[in-house]
Amino acid sequence: MEQPLPTAAAEAAAAGGDGEAYRIRPLELADISRGFLGLLNQLSPSPPLTEEAFRARFEELAALGADHLVLVAEDAATGRLAAAGAVLVERKFIRRCGRVGHVEDVVVDAAARGRGLGERVVRRLVEHARGRGCYKVIINCTPELTGFYAKCGFVEKNVQMGLYF
Amino acid sequence: MEQPLPTAAAEAAAAGGDGEAYRIRPLELADISRGFLGLLNQLSPSPPLTEEAFRARFEELAALGADHLVLVAEDAATGRLAAAGAVLVERKFIRRCGRVGHVEDVVVDAAARGRGLGERVVRRLVEHARGRGCYKVIINCTPELTGFYAKCGFVEKNVQMGLYF
Repeated sequence: MEQPLPTAAAEAAAAGGDGEAYRIRPLELADISRGFLGLLNQLSPSPPLTEEAFRARFEELAALGADHLVLVAEDAATGRLAAAGAVLVERKFIRRCGRVGHVEDVVVDAAARGRGLGERVVRRLVEHARGRGCYKVIINCTPELTGFYAKCGFVEKNVQMGLYF
Repeated sequence: MEQPLPTAAAEAAAAGGDGEAYRIRPLELADISRGFLGLLNQLSPSPPLTEEAFRARFEELAALGADHLVLVAEDAATGRLAAAGAVLVERKFIRRCGRVGHVEDVVVDAAARGRGLGERVVRRLVEHARGRGCYKVIINCTPELTGFYAKCGFVEKNVQMGLYF
């Protein structure tokens, strides 16, 4: 098995250098056995997802094509997933049938934080939305994370309100 | 032509009383000639939409079925549109493949404000999201509108950030 890169090199590689320690790629069905559900649980603790339910949702999202993209960061050495995020493209009538990218569910494994992985995933999601013709991308986050998203190029805009059933 | 209801009665009717002054219903193709584009322009001023572009986007959204609903409020007396709003249903993996409703592009014609129309449209969009199995509905708004959405049952949650291309 390839020797894991020493931390400093991992940091450089995580920042997108050559010989990447982490590969950012679209979610795959097999990711259910590479730690995807564990990542989700760090984002929003909930009872485990069955493989069947995962597969069904995976296929529903695949049917939406490029309008809904889930990206993951795979540790090149272990094959385990270290981060994930999603973007969905909303089709509007305003702005001459404009499109808006909604970034959702960004999570970095607690053991892999501080290596720029979250920023790499978010930037890839933003580029995907740009490529889909969106005029903007939005993200809702806690006040503690506004600094992180400012680093990714976002600015504070509005208030997010929620209604729970 | 039916005599327009006196203002007080219009207010009562707008609040969903009998003999409704406004009917809340899904967007129709013919709404391009009932003031839909003028409403959008009040929401986000932009060059007029061609009928062809409107039709193409209408059909794209129709293909998403109940996961993307645009509602309008039609003045029963004139057939003109007085309000509009949309909700899109996001399919997630978290929360055991949970769904979230995103309320977007709520607008009430300047001449029809103060009659509870906006609240009626928002409540119908919320009910649609509930019916689609969403565990919550979210909306992004300016600080000035948080009171309105609180009246509709929303609570302040997070910060919305944006990145414009």
